[in-house]
Amino acid sequence: MALARLLTAVERGDGQAVESAFALPVDQSGQVVGVTGSPGAGKSTLIDAVVATLRAVDERVGVLAVDPSSPYSGGALLGDRIRMMRHVGDHGVFIRSLANRGHLGGLSVAMPSAVRAVGACGFTTVLIETVGVGQAEVEVVRQADTTVVVTTPGMGDAVQSGKAGVLEIANVLVVNKADREGATETARDLRDMLRWAPTPAGGWRVPVVTTRADTGEGVEELVEVVRSHRSHLEDSGELARGRAARSVAEFHAYARARVLDRLDRSLAADTGRALTEAVADGTLTPAAAADRLVAGDGRPQG
Amino acid sequence: MALARLLTAVERGDGQAVESAFALPVDQSGQVVGVTGSPGAGKSTLIDAVVATLRAVDERVGVLAVDPSSPYSGGALLGDRIRMMRHVGDHGVFIRSLANRGHLGGLSVAMPSAVRAVGACGFTTVLIETVGVGQAEVEVVRQADTTVVVTTPGMGDAVQSGKAGVLEIANVLVVNKADREGATETARDLRDMLRWAPTPAGGWRVPVVTTRADTGEGVEELVEVVRSHRSHLEDSGELARGRAARSVAEFHAYARARVLDRLDRSLAADTGRALTEAVADGTLTPAAAADRLVAGDGRPQG
Repeated sequence: MALARLLTAVERGDGQAVESAFALPVDQSGQVVGVTGSPGAGKSTLIDAVVATLRAVDERVGVLAVDPSSPYSGGALLGDRIRMMRHVGDHGVFIRSLANRGHLGGLSVAMPSAVRAVGACGFTTVLIETVGVGQAEVEVVRQADTTVVVTTPGMGDAVQSGKAGVLEIANVLVVNKADREGATETARDLRDMLRWAPTPAGGWRVPVVTTRADTGEGVEELVEVVRSHRSHLEDSGELARGRAARSVAEFHAYARARVLDRLDRSLAADTGRALTEAVADGTLTPAAAADRLVAGDGRPQG
Repeated sequence: MALARLLTAVERGDGQAVESAFALPVDQSGQVVGVTGSPGAGKSTLIDAVVATLRAVDERVGVLAVDPSSPYSGGALLGDRIRMMRHVGDHGVFIRSLANRGHLGGLSVAMPSAVRAVGACGFTTVLIETVGVGQAEVEVVRQADTTVVVTTPGMGDAVQSGKAGVLEIANVLVVNKADREGATETARDLRDMLRWAPTPAGGWRVPVVTTRADTGEGVEELVEVVRSHRSHLEDSGELARGRAARSVAEFHAYARARVLDRLDRSLAADTGRALTEAVADGTLTPAAAADRLVAGDGRPQG
């Protein structure tokens, strides 16, 4: 419950909450897994199946669902509530939606601090689920150690994923809805595409797993593959390197958010309001007003 | 040529160039016209026809083409060069592409400063052309006094425009490629859609103009309608209000860009680099590092 409250504050852009989250250490033993793919690929159902598999071996799992393009979490929250019902009373599962409320750095700050907080609370596997697939989603799954891209039978979808640059970020590829026509062909096509891709740093070759999230078929294999990617990351040193890079990105994003937050407050204060009025009535140009508000050393005045 | 150099510097994110542009007064006698719509709607050809019509009555015209989603202006530049050839030696036409280079506030700073600079150089009509249609494009055309949304026959396109929220921002709607099947129906459907829209502030009813950019059919009517929207804005006081609001937005965007620019320089300096290293090797959390870099008053240190 304390975690839920912290995340609500983080989403609202509460500086102290964000600071608390960013002051938490990264849980080095855990794994953060990003799950992305086109809407309708069955990501939510697949994540449910993964959660069930992990719970069967008593692992604590956190799920963070995020829609970077939407400032509303209404739709996602409804989905949460439905899924929550299945896990009611299970303290080993934590599920939460994050919306892009656009405060204190928006998701670029809220997501990493939420991931930190969930991990630090003992949820050793944190799944990040994105609603859509696009540049904003790619940014979100950069928070993950391992990125799973979910597609469905039919090359159109896979080609679209290729276009959106999603295949490049995949550490594991899933062809979900494997009972549908063309599943074998899609998996083969994806393997062909991957064969032409340059060998990635560290030598990990992206596996293609076929699943049926509705029946659980292939889900254990998926979990094994995701785990083996973590071992690979650890052995190659990529895990530590990736996490260090993410901590640095968090530091920079948070510093930016703080500076902007301070500027916004300065714009809302007396000097800022007077300058805004002067710009509106044309007695000051935007540049002159910025000069007076922000000193040469970047310190907001007034 | 001086204008072209200034815009190159603005696009690069050169603080002094942006400052120069923002220190220019808004040309009160001119009109900034945003042109948006799906790719393939014929926006470029239509803008060419509009430029020709305006040149026939000796008006000086600036065209700023912008692709908010792309950091590369290569493609747009090629199109520019082709179009430029038609206007070679005509000092009454200025054409320029702006790409989203992501420096000093990106397009949120580069666009308005470019619009200011072009207007201040005596190009009384400034046309802003967006490549696609989406949220980023909507932001770009907010720089305009008048927004023209271009569609083509076939309801699909119009409905898509409605979905993307583009119809809401239209002051003038164009059905281009009017020789195509279904043009009359599309114009009628759009007029029907508009009939159900709430009466806008100021009482302007959005006109629907059918054009053939390739032959110039309907283009004079389009120019007249665009001009009458300007008269309407002036008479209702909306022109002054809109420009005041944009100047304020420019002031805020530029102040933000300056503060962030200063922070980036501070991150690249000794203290910032040392803090970044400490975060990377885990001896400092992101929050603690931000604390040391950014004092409580928002002033970057070191």
